[in-house]
Parts: sequence; C-alpha cells; structure tokens
Amino acid sequence: MTGIGLAIDAMGGDFGPRVTVPAALTVLRENPSLRLTFVGDESLIDPFLSGLTAGERFRVSVVHTTEVVTMDDKVAVALRQKKQSSMRLAINLVHQKTVSACVSAGNTGALMAISRFVLKTHANIDRPAIMAALPTMTGHVHMLDLGANVESEPHHLLQFAQMGSVVAEVLDGIERPRIGLLNIGEEEIKGNDLIKQTDQLLKQSGLNYIGYVEGDGVFKGHADVVVCDGFVGNIALKSSEGVAKMMAAKIKEEISRNVLTKLLGALALPIWKGLKQQMDPGRYNGASLVGLTGIVIKSHGSADEASFAQAVRVAIKEVEKNVPALIHARLTVTASAVPDAI
Amino acid sequence: MTGIGLAIDAMGGDFGPRVTVPAALTVLRENPSLRLTFVGDESLIDPFLSGLTAGERFRVSVVHTTEVVTMDDKVAVALRQKKQSSMRLAINLVHQKTVSACVSAGNTGALMAISRFVLKTHANIDRPAIMAALPTMTGHVHMLDLGANVESEPHHLLQFAQMGSVVAEVLDGIERPRIGLLNIGEEEIKGNDLIKQTDQLLKQSGLNYIGYVEGDGVFKGHADVVVCDGFVGNIALKSSEGVAKMMAAKIKEEISRNVLTKLLGALALPIWKGLKQQMDPGRYNGASLVGLTGIVIKSHGSADEASFAQAVRVAIKEVEKNVPALIHARLTVTASAVPDAI
Repeated sequence: MTGIGLAIDAMGGDFGPRVTVPAALTVLRENPSLRLTFVGDESLIDPFLSGLTAGERFRVSVVHTTEVVTMDDKVAVALRQKKQSSMRLAINLVHQKTVSACVSAGNTGALMAISRFVLKTHANIDRPAIMAALPTMTGHVHMLDLGANVESEPHHLLQFAQMGSVVAEVLDGIERPRIGLLNIGEEEIKGNDLIKQTDQLLKQSGLNYIGYVEGDGVFKGHADVVVCDGFVGNIALKSSEGVAKMMAAKIKEEISRNVLTKLLGALALPIWKGLKQQMDPGRYNGASLVGLTGIVIKSHGSADEASFAQAVRVAIKEVEKNVPALIHARLTVTASAVPDAI
Repeated sequence: MTGIGLAIDAMGGDFGPRVTVPAALTVLRENPSLRLTFVGDESLIDPFLSGLTAGERFRVSVVHTTEVVTMDDKVAVALRQKKQSSMRLAINLVHQKTVSACVSAGNTGALMAISRFVLKTHANIDRPAIMAALPTMTGHVHMLDLGANVESEPHHLLQFAQMGSVVAEVLDGIERPRIGLLNIGEEEIKGNDLIKQTDQLLKQSGLNYIGYVEGDGVFKGHADVVVCDGFVGNIALKSSEGVAKMMAAKIKEEISRNVLTKLLGALALPIWKGLKQQMDPGRYNGASLVGLTGIVIKSHGSADEASFAQAVRVAIKEVEKNVPALIHARLTVTASAVPDAI
C-alpha cells in the first residue's frame, strides 16, 4: 500500500482520544493517501470512527492497549515499566517501519526517553533535541533545543545547529539558513563558557553562522534557526507563551471593561480574528524530536483539535521531505569532511 | 538640606540629555523635596534647564564632564580608562553620599562593574544582581538576576532570593513574599544541577519558598519573586519583550490591513489605550542593581521620556524605603542565625 502511514498516540495530552482522534481524522480527509494507526483504548477510540466513509475507514486501523503514560509519570517508570503504553507502541510502529512517523501529545520527558531508547540517534548525533517553529515579525524561526537536554556541551549545540540547518533548508526551501546562537548580548565579550566555545565551533562549521542572537532578536526574525541549550530554550519558549497569553488576557480584560469597550471589541472582531490566526499557538503546534532515526512529533499537551491536527501535518511534511535521512546524510558527510570539527 | 537627592547620568541611553533631563525634571516637579544632580556635558544639559522656575532651578545642579561610556565600550575600558565618565561620576556621588541614588540608561555591563567597584556589595552578598518588576496577569513579579552574572552558584541564587524577598516585602508591603525558582518543569526530577542544589538551599532558607516556577508561570503570577541565574533571566526577559513587541506589531498590521480594519482599529482606540497603559514597558522601566551598599537604577537604553521618568521614580521609592539598609540588616541576621545555610 502506498502513501504515508502515521501512528497516533491517541491517549496522550490533556484530552486524549476526544481531541486526538477527530483531529487526526480531519487531516486524513485532507490527504487521500494518508493512513492512520490509532494506538490506545479502542473503546474510547472507536466511537469517533463511526462517522467515517468506508473508504476512509479502510485507511484507519487501531492498535488496542489500555496502558497509558500519564503526565505525572517519571521518565524511568514510563520507559521501564510501561512497555505496552500507547506511547511506546506508537513509537515501536515507527521503529518497525509499519508507519513513517508518530505523533503524541503526551509527557515530553517520557516521549523523548522512549523515542531515544527505541529509535536511537544517528551515528554522528550524541543527543536528540526538541525543535519547533515559532512565529516572528517576518515569518518563523526554528528553535532548538527546547528542553530535551538540561545540560549541553558545545559539540552538542554544534550538532543541533547542523540538524536545524538541514530542517530549515528542506522544510522552508532556504538554501543557506542563517544560524544564530542564543546569547544575552551581541558583543563578543558576553555569554558564558558554553556560549563562547560553541561560538568558536560554529565559526568553523561551514554553516551560515551569523553569530549571537538575543531573546528579542529571535522574534524579530534575525535568524532562520536559533540554537540554545534545552534549559534556556525551554525557559525562553515558556516565557514567550506566558507573555502571549497574558497579552491576550489583558486585551479581553480591556474589552470587558465597560459597555462601550465591549461594543468596540465586538466591532473589532475582524482584527482579533486576523491576530488569532497569525499568533495562534496551534498554528505552530508540533515540535520535532530531531536527531533520531525516525520521526516523532510532540504536540502541546493542552492542544485542541485544530492544534493537534497541525502537529499531524508537521509529521506528514517531515515524512514527505524525508528529514531524518537528510540529516543522517548531511551529518555523515560533515563528519568525514571535517573530522576535528567536533 | 532635607529631601532626596538623586544623581542622573545624563549622557546614558540611546538619546542622552534630550530624554534623561526632561524626564527627570518631570519627576522633580512631582516631588517638591527632590534634588537632582545631572552629570554630563553641561552644554547639552543646560538648554533643558532654562524653563525651570527659580525654586526648581535651586534644586538642580550640574556636574560637568565630557567623558562618556558608550554602549559599545568594553567593561574593562569603561571601568579602568573612563574615570571621568558621567556614569562613573554619578556613581561616585552615591558613594560619597552626596546623593542617595543614581539612575543611568547607559551600558549595563559597565554600570554593573563600576557600581560594584565603587560601592561594593554588602558583607554577606557575593555578587549584585539585576532585579526588575515585570507585569503578570495578577499584578507584577520581581525577577532576578536579569543579566548581571552569566555563571552562578547555588548560594548566589539563595542570596538573590533573600534580597528579592526583602525588596518585595518593603516595596509591595507583602509580609511573606512567595519565592519561586525558575525551572523547566514543576516536577522534582526536572532541572539541572544548579537548580536542584538551589532548591535544597531554598527549602532550608526560612523564606516563603514555593518551589519551581516555569516560564509561563512567571507571567501567570505564580510567585512574588522569581529567582534565576543571569543568563537564563536575561534570555527570559528579552524573549518576553520580543514577543510583546511582535504582538503589538501584529495588531498594527491587522489594523492596517484594509479600510474596514483601519476604521475598526480607530474605533477601538480606548481598548488600545487601556492595553498600552497596562503593558507599556515604560511602566515597568527601572531595574535595581541589588546587593550593593548604594542604590543604582538601570533604565532601558531605549527609554523615552515617560519610561526614564519611571526609572527615576523607582529610585525615589527605593531611597524612601531604604532598601540597601534593609537588605544589609536582614542578611546579617540570616547569616548569623543559620551560619551553615550558605
């Protein structure tokens, strides 16, 4: 059977099957060559499949399991004691090449650990990283690592940069993506040891390295790819989300202030709609676990249907562009061409 | 002469005297007991003093110097070779107790280094930190360190927490400020070694420590004080500023999309005004260099008049509340009560 096959961890996320299944089915209808394998409790999944046409139903299968990785599960428990979880079985399907990618809105730490254990990293990649596209004033930026690793060495950040460059090239069609290193100032003197040493490696990397990018520069669109360690990247990501949510809440607060502002707020609806469309976190949902031999896409745990569907589309795009194979090919060449770069 | 005396580094910031002098004079008119000493090139400062009444002029003096620390000056150059700079002389006035505080919009690294060299830290404080109030959904949060130190040890973060607690207590009148530690997850297992060790110190500190706060939790108002190392804090701050600016730009973009949206945007003006008032970075301008024996307030370099005036008001508030003396007193007690806490 031709086409793309995806495994969906139906049980992941705050809402489980009632969001993941309808969301993935929306994408199924958009893509006539897409096949979906839902992994999870079939008694919770099946009700959402009843509305499918016979042709659609033919492209959907269910792998039944009742074991679930919860948001509170420790990584070690999820990895060692939940070998029949929907998350684990979905990743296994990628490993067995039954499907080309999997999508989960579950526990990030568990997803990363299980993916790494089952799928392994590329030969020249020490660690996977979490990468996502974020909106900027001029378009979007790919940022990594967003939290897979809490301690990183300079050569890890170099590898993140190499992987990010490939992804921006193939997903966005940018010939030489601009690579920036997240730092607290643009001057040479700033930054900690990790940053200074990484800066030296990036200068010799052959990548289109443009130097340091500050936190605000990320959102000004100064670079196509921004590299940072996972601790800092996660803080930057969550802080940004926090501010965006706060601003949305403050706008609502201003609108509900009195009768006049309520009226004006209602009139200005087209503006809010346009803004929501541009800024909606859902539009940017779907982070990649790059560096693995297979494609694993992490959805935000609180994703609604539209957001989760977006994460499924990210998986399809990565499958179509064959991202892991390109990363593998590029890094193998890089490693043999400049053996002492790392 | 009674009242509060402040030194203003008139030459600092992107705009120099044409912003710093009128801004500080606005605050002078608000506070009949305030005296100002402008430090900088008198030929650039004097023109702005001509509109003062005789009574106001009596409360203003000028210390003339033509040497200036530029935004591009390396810290070592600013510290060792520019001993007659407006920044240095303003800080000297604090040290000599000619004034009670100084305000500068100049080079942050230079301001920190010179302040530390001239004023020194309190006996039980190893390093100063940059602390500022940021808007949250429920009010504001004090966050530190925002960039004074790029490498920190757990006991430094403990000291930041102790200082932040005192400041939130005296400036906001909160009896037992909630202290949060910035981390990438709320679970015990997350975080790097610095975070885990600091967590242990904070648990034994006697402070009202509430545990980990994530990037988005900062803006949800989960804590009164959020502690982090300077590298992470600066990235979080700048990223947040970047997102806020991007959202403001996107709103403008949506409004200017067509004639209808322009009209609706104009009608919705009261909403924008309310939002701007709440979110205006100027409203939160004025970061403290805490841990020093004197008060030094850092304004954003790009501050306009309204923003710089706000930084001057922060200085006045810290003088009135006698912040450094309280930090000194509290940390001396803490150090003798729990000698092995650090």
